Amino acid sequence: MPSFKAPVADVLFLLTDVLHIDRYGNLPGFAELTPDVMEAVLNEAAKLCEEVLQPLNRIGDRDGCVRHADGQVTTPPGFRNAYKAYCDGGWQGLAVDASYGGQSLPQVMGVAVNEFCVGANMAFTMYPGLTKSAISALLVHGSDEQKRLYAPRMVAGEWSGTMNLTESHCGTDLGMLKTRAAPQADGSYKITGQKIFISAGEHDLTSNIIHLVLARIEGAPAGTKGISLFLVPKVMVHPNGSLGARNAVSCGALEHKMGIHGNATCVMNYDGATGWLVGEAHRGLNAMFVMMNEARIGVAIQGLGLSEVAYQNAAAYAKDRLQGRALTGRKNESGPADPIIVHPDVRRMLLEIRAFNEGARALLLWTTLQADLAGSAEDQKVRQQAEDLLGLMTPVLKGVLTDTGFDNCVTAQQVFGGHGYVAEWGMEQFVRDARIAMIYEGANGIQALDLVGRKLPKDGGRAFAAFTKEVATYIKENAGDEAQKPFLQPLKEGLDRLQQATMWFMANAMGNPDNAGAGSTAYMHLFGLVGMGYMWARIAKAAMGRAGDPAMDTKLAVGRIFMERLMPESAAHLARVTAGAQTMMALPAEAF
Amino acid sequence: MPSFKAPVADVLFLLTDVLHIDRYGNLPGFAELTPDVMEAVLNEAAKLCEEVLQPLNRIGDRDGCVRHADGQVTTPPGFRNAYKAYCDGGWQGLAVDASYGGQSLPQVMGVAVNEFCVGANMAFTMYPGLTKSAISALLVHGSDEQKRLYAPRMVAGEWSGTMNLTESHCGTDLGMLKTRAAPQADGSYKITGQKIFISAGEHDLTSNIIHLVLARIEGAPAGTKGISLFLVPKVMVHPNGSLGARNAVSCGALEHKMGIHGNATCVMNYDGATGWLVGEAHRGLNAMFVMMNEARIGVAIQGLGLSEVAYQNAAAYAKDRLQGRALTGRKNESGPADPIIVHPDVRRMLLEIRAFNEGARALLLWTTLQADLAGSAEDQKVRQQAEDLLGLMTPVLKGVLTDTGFDNCVTAQQVFGGHGYVAEWGMEQFVRDARIAMIYEGANGIQALDLVGRKLPKDGGRAFAAFTKEVATYIKENAGDEAQKPFLQPLKEGLDRLQQATMWFMANAMGNPDNAGAGSTAYMHLFGLVGMGYMWARIAKAAMGRAGDPAMDTKLAVGRIFMERLMPESAAHLARVTAGAQTMMALPAEAF
Repeated sequence: MPSFKAPVADVLFLLTDVLHIDRYGNLPGFAELTPDVMEAVLNEAAKLCEEVLQPLNRIGDRDGCVRHADGQVTTPPGFRNAYKAYCDGGWQGLAVDASYGGQSLPQVMGVAVNEFCVGANMAFTMYPGLTKSAISALLVHGSDEQKRLYAPRMVAGEWSGTMNLTESHCGTDLGMLKTRAAPQADGSYKITGQKIFISAGEHDLTSNIIHLVLARIEGAPAGTKGISLFLVPKVMVHPNGSLGARNAVSCGALEHKMGIHGNATCVMNYDGATGWLVGEAHRGLNAMFVMMNEARIGVAIQGLGLSEVAYQNAAAYAKDRLQGRALTGRKNESGPADPIIVHPDVRRMLLEIRAFNEGARALLLWTTLQADLAGSAEDQKVRQQAEDLLGLMTPVLKGVLTDTGFDNCVTAQQVFGGHGYVAEWGMEQFVRDARIAMIYEGANGIQALDLVGRKLPKDGGRAFAAFTKEVATYIKENAGDEAQKPFLQPLKEGLDRLQQATMWFMANAMGNPDNAGAGSTAYMHLFGLVGMGYMWARIAKAAMGRAGDPAMDTKLAVGRIFMERLMPESAAHLARVTAGAQTMMALPAEAF
Repeated sequence: MPSFKAPVADVLFLLTDVLHIDRYGNLPGFAELTPDVMEAVLNEAAKLCEEVLQPLNRIGDRDGCVRHADGQVTTPPGFRNAYKAYCDGGWQGLAVDASYGGQSLPQVMGVAVNEFCVGANMAFTMYPGLTKSAISALLVHGSDEQKRLYAPRMVAGEWSGTMNLTESHCGTDLGMLKTRAAPQADGSYKITGQKIFISAGEHDLTSNIIHLVLARIEGAPAGTKGISLFLVPKVMVHPNGSLGARNAVSCGALEHKMGIHGNATCVMNYDGATGWLVGEAHRGLNAMFVMMNEARIGVAIQGLGLSEVAYQNAAAYAKDRLQGRALTGRKNESGPADPIIVHPDVRRMLLEIRAFNEGARALLLWTTLQADLAGSAEDQKVRQQAEDLLGLMTPVLKGVLTDTGFDNCVTAQQVFGGHGYVAEWGMEQFVRDARIAMIYEGANGIQALDLVGRKLPKDGGRAFAAFTKEVATYIKENAGDEAQKPFLQPLKEGLDRLQQATMWFMANAMGNPDNAGAGSTAYMHLFGLVGMGYMWARIAKAAMGRAGDPAMDTKLAVGRIFMERLMPESAAHLARVTAGAQTMMALPAEAF
């Protein structure tokens, strides 16, 4: 059975020593976040994750969700109690405004806690995770009445939320969606159609489920400009919040999936279900993007969370498993063999995962801080730049943390040899669960296109310029410190390659957008390496400031692994970008 | 439901145009292999694979094997009939000497057919695959009586074979194994102990199962030098070959695995089972290595076979699935959207897989030709060099084809978006099945160590020198041809990097073997890139020789993808090799 320990110390170090969260004490939510409060919240979350959520992870995988003949869905044993514990602890509303019953803490705290939860039990965490994103969409685009009626009960965890986009013939290309909405005299709509792959679409954790559904109002224009967003409750809600009759929406089937068996992935049938418009008509994609962008960060967290728990278990196994002898002579003289952690190739696997995890966690928290700043900084210029950086980094985090997070789960599984392939050790579940994160909320190829085709050129490249300026300035300001050189030199090389790749796009993709498409995935990963490399440079500097602490010596070694073994991939990515589209586009489709 | 078409044309092209198999007409087995015979054999194999084995692949995954209360194991529905068809077709003995009932064709034909079978149904193919390797071990190390009694019935597929190495506390480190063998007065041994992870350990396909089992004779030295190999039949065999009583060996349990559900992975209990020594006492590992080396090539084939079938299905889906529009304007004006193959990032995924597959297939067949030459070339020097190259390339093929084959299955699954994650499309099964190949028959980290620690320095580096000389000579001889430059230039860069990495080991690993261990996996992958790059250079040359054939134009484009997008990784691998072990070995175990 795998185990899990929430990385509380690393998050505290990142928030205080690296990101200097105390600088933001003047902003709403941050003022209350004294070091004591921060530590107490993280420890309390860790306790829930380690003691309540983690023990259910394998049960959830094994038993899965069950759909009954009447369309009701039962979650795995223990999930209901765990969900109650989660809601009773106030975790659903941690980063939601107090006026809706939340705790008004910054988003960055919500993200840190979310990573803990995913590491403990990803399938479980998807239920409250989707609710959180649905709340955000409602708070931005919902009417006052919708906010009043739905948000507090969702914040309390009494009701949950979902997002309904995909149909069997369209996922990426939502312009093709067929679900339709017929206006009614009372201002409501009748929603009719079928949605697939709906996470948490039906379950027994809450008394109501609030579906946010994309549909086309009768007579609306074709394509994405004719799509509207609707709120469709599973059970009708009276104006006083009490529950009424069942709405005409039901779960038609559960998907048989590779992993996340503990989460109910539903085919949802809307048979003239009553719904209400959220935001403006025909502007549904815009409204849904609030939910989607937050969910993309949520999915990035899944990649990191599983990579973290996979690392922890592989490291424990490597210290425990006796097999063979060290290349440099016996290390465990009295035992029948040495623990496999004596082998450099085993350390390579562990350290490459860890170097990624700690850099990725820093980049995730840095980006989420931008979300907090974008929402509440006093200076408009600060808000704008934070918004720019958040937009730029969202596809990078989603694509890179899930691609590499999955790879890392595979590598951690490898440490176990044959034992990694059997269910009992739990490693193969991490791999199966992690796989979906590369796909949903926009497959990673779509993230790469979003980065290259939209985020990069947006506002004349303002976001990219802000990012590179920040990194270049950091390198310059610290260039005098010899000790930082092993971090700054590779970072500079990575940054140079990122700028070369960007210039190559500018020179070659205007005339032929396929040149951007062909290099987009490589570019996204190059961007991720530079982003994490920048974080590692800052981590190293902070660690040097606490010399003598063995944990800090470890950080410096792990950071060098990042620079020595992960950053060199940036050169290969640049080569792939500059290879262009010509060779791959030359072939006719029949040649494939 | 996924489909599969055996890559007959590619194999024929490789054997004739690239590897010039007609040069070997003077060798046993090759004389009969006229182009007509070759094509007929491959087409017949393709038919069996496409019509009989492939349709059972998903059933095998879904229904799996069942162990009954009495220890008997039932294979999935249809497997018995398919196995009968396989044996009736003479496929078990395709590359076995006619004196044992085989067809005496070269190994290279057996390997080509094996790839087809794996692409159709990997879990099924493991049953005859293990039998084939067991036959090889018996023919090399068995007594005349053992060969006479067991081999023909195994060649006929009447009986199957297994290899029993792993115990719960030892896999890689076989020196620790505890299964013991007590000598009996009649020359037999009583074998007692428990083996785990035994593929095809028990099943209902054959009337007998011949287990090859590693055990320690009572009083034998500790460690690997005290291990002997035993033949332990499931059912006792009378001298005339008829079956007697049940032996004291039984299946205690089936493992619950991530994939290959159609193959019975057994815990095997030996309770004083009767066995006979194979080869010399205490030299069991040596004897088992014949089986293991052949099995390693067999596992490499699994990586390639699954990568091939995954590619085929992803390519078909990409041509069929309508979603979005091409970046350069509509390609399917009358349809609601363009097929996703218009997108460069989709082509990138497909072409990177295919560039790997075709290069890997060539390298696999080239290496297996060395096995044929090593066994039957007239010139002793040719035999020795072939043996060297086979030994050198075996860990490279096993490690690289399974690591990248798995990655390719993941990439092919990605092409399907959410549909790749659900069972019905079959893509997630390929990923789960492919995962084991990186682990068994020596985890890939062990392959890398075998390459760097044994194969590279063996006989003063003779094998490596032969390989690099062959590649360098090829580059030199073709340097005058401008058309070949896009292939030869990147190959030369790759070869230079491989030589630099090798020299770095020579300079730094003698004093500190951890420097070899830390770079071993990167080195193995670097070696694989150069090996496949060499093959691609030869493929390109052959394709240029058949100008005007659209299939050859496609080959040239796919080969350029290899050079533009896969080969650049060689630089990153070199950087990892030369990073050395210092940083990763500096940390104490507690720091992990």
